[in-house]
Amino acid sequence: MDDVTFAVLGTGGIGRRALEVSQHKDHLTPVAACDRHGVAIDFDGLDVDELLAATEGNIDNEVATDGGTGTAAAESEGGVKQHGEDRGVVASEQARPSEDPIQEIIDHGDGIDAVLLALPNYEHDFIPRTADRFVEGGYSGVLIDVLKRSRVIEMLDERSEAFEDAGITFICGAGATPGLLTGAAALAAQSFVEVESVDIWWGVGLKSGYEDNRGTVREDIAHLPEYDIETAREMSDEEIEAVIDDHDGVIEFEDMEHADDVLLERAGICDAEDVEVGGILDVRSDEKPTTTTVRVTGRTFDGETATNTFQLGDETSMEANVNGPALGYLKAGVRRNRAGEYGVFGPAELMPGF
Amino acid sequence: MDDVTFAVLGTGGIGRRALEVSQHKDHLTPVAACDRHGVAIDFDGLDVDELLAATEGNIDNEVATDGGTGTAAAESEGGVKQHGEDRGVVASEQARPSEDPIQEIIDHGDGIDAVLLALPNYEHDFIPRTADRFVEGGYSGVLIDVLKRSRVIEMLDERSEAFEDAGITFICGAGATPGLLTGAAALAAQSFVEVESVDIWWGVGLKSGYEDNRGTVREDIAHLPEYDIETAREMSDEEIEAVIDDHDGVIEFEDMEHADDVLLERAGICDAEDVEVGGILDVRSDEKPTTTTVRVTGRTFDGETATNTFQLGDETSMEANVNGPALGYLKAGVRRNRAGEYGVFGPAELMPGF
Repeated sequence: MDDVTFAVLGTGGIGRRALEVSQHKDHLTPVAACDRHGVAIDFDGLDVDELLAATEGNIDNEVATDGGTGTAAAESEGGVKQHGEDRGVVASEQARPSEDPIQEIIDHGDGIDAVLLALPNYEHDFIPRTADRFVEGGYSGVLIDVLKRSRVIEMLDERSEAFEDAGITFICGAGATPGLLTGAAALAAQSFVEVESVDIWWGVGLKSGYEDNRGTVREDIAHLPEYDIETAREMSDEEIEAVIDDHDGVIEFEDMEHADDVLLERAGICDAEDVEVGGILDVRSDEKPTTTTVRVTGRTFDGETATNTFQLGDETSMEANVNGPALGYLKAGVRRNRAGEYGVFGPAELMPGF
Repeated sequence: MDDVTFAVLGTGGIGRRALEVSQHKDHLTPVAACDRHGVAIDFDGLDVDELLAATEGNIDNEVATDGGTGTAAAESEGGVKQHGEDRGVVASEQARPSEDPIQEIIDHGDGIDAVLLALPNYEHDFIPRTADRFVEGGYSGVLIDVLKRSRVIEMLDERSEAFEDAGITFICGAGATPGLLTGAAALAAQSFVEVESVDIWWGVGLKSGYEDNRGTVREDIAHLPEYDIETAREMSDEEIEAVIDDHDGVIEFEDMEHADDVLLERAGICDAEDVEVGGILDVRSDEKPTTTTVRVTGRTFDGETATNTFQLGDETSMEANVNGPALGYLKAGVRRNRAGEYGVFGPAELMPGF
């Protein structure tokens, strides 16, 4: 496969780390990055070191509110966000201010194979609406996000035909979970002719503590039985902290609204109802409170029932588990796009055609 | 992706089980099967039940001598091979005798998207030479094997240009190992920007005991430090049994010549020298003597070192772990072929473009 160029929309946690990790990947060149303040475009390749250094104190501290779990929300905020002048990407000498930075990326779309939508999702439809702009702007290539909520994927599905007509391959949910973990489930399923259950269990220890991750915690609280996205959004910081205190900083989630289920069903691995996602978020420790584990139980062609297991080492940060897979799926998406396969795809669908 | 048609060369253990497992796969239609006695071709789809039932007592009991490990050799011989009249596939009413069954498959190649080479490998170059016949016969599609020895892959690599010119996508080593386990390693590597080591450790308990698996055991003995393929091939059955007895039926293998290493290097996961393959074969028990495990240790972008792990349930037979992945990789190969990607590919290269 030829070299791949990509752009990043949003230079918060995910966007910055995607740029950083891409430096370790062969044949993958970041050519554009933007936030709401401005845009940097260089088809010879951005100087990532300069961009990250110059903007380090100027990160646009937007709060992701896609209702993400600790897994994704953690990587969107943990570790690199810092307070500073609110100049965002414009602090880099490669960037310039723009009234409509996303449009500038779209206008340069001919030279961009893939666009990572590392945007805050204030509203559930922010990323779908951004995708609409790419369709309207005549973009033809890969769009990819690392979202998790099933309902966003439904919105993207409604746009599937428009993507197909435009020649867009949209890869959704390509971070740690769904992303890496549904990919692992799809692979682990290969011993079986029928998958009985997929159990995804994650552990996240927020390095920087919960003070810097209130947005994340707020979104996770929306997953607790007694809350939803709307009620969590309305809560004051004090109310959030009270919930944290009630849980002594360790919150366990069961049966989350995570897109792993619909994405595994799309890929033909199992029924959505056979997928369960949960995990533990510890906002007061760097250590993961539990080992992130995928268990796939199924029946083999010769009648045995067994469980295949995939575990992430406790020392891997969620940042590491999001950005490596996201870039891998990005490249897989470009391959599909170049082969003329358009529409909406989940990570498990990009695995060998099981 | 459209429907996929495939043929099986060889109706021993792998071939028969591939046909059986394909019945559980959507959009995958077996249209041809042959052994050295004859050929069955039906573009409406073979009646797999009839073919397997009719040939059950007539399996051509060829001995695979590709120097396979217990993992692959076990699946090539365990469980289904039985003694009977040596009529092979011709015992099926769908088949007819042929002087050159492989040529008949080649001559019908236009309707066959992929060909699984489930052939005995009496000589190391038997499968490469069979591939040559497909090139000469003008075949354009997918060829796939489940071999393990690194040196066979080298032979295929020498033919890479010929495959490219012919429009052939050759997928090599697509069984349990390398296949499933290198795929898992490629996925597990995604948390890391640098992989330090890949440790593949397999356990096989031969269901049918070693009496029915002398060929397998012979090949595995070739992996022991004091033997090689040539010396193992020359041993009498009594000498083989003596080695078994010396080990009390449980043979441990270290640092095997397994293609996992070169295939992971090809896929850009790590250097071949950082891959180690070993395992334990228990020829006198149905239980696996150890749990098949892949450990990938690496460094994350944020400087941590960790190990991600993939484990197969002890209850999955090697037959199950070979044939599901083989058919999955077959479909992935067809996708690549239709996208115009020709040459030689290992399983890890078919994973999302990491």
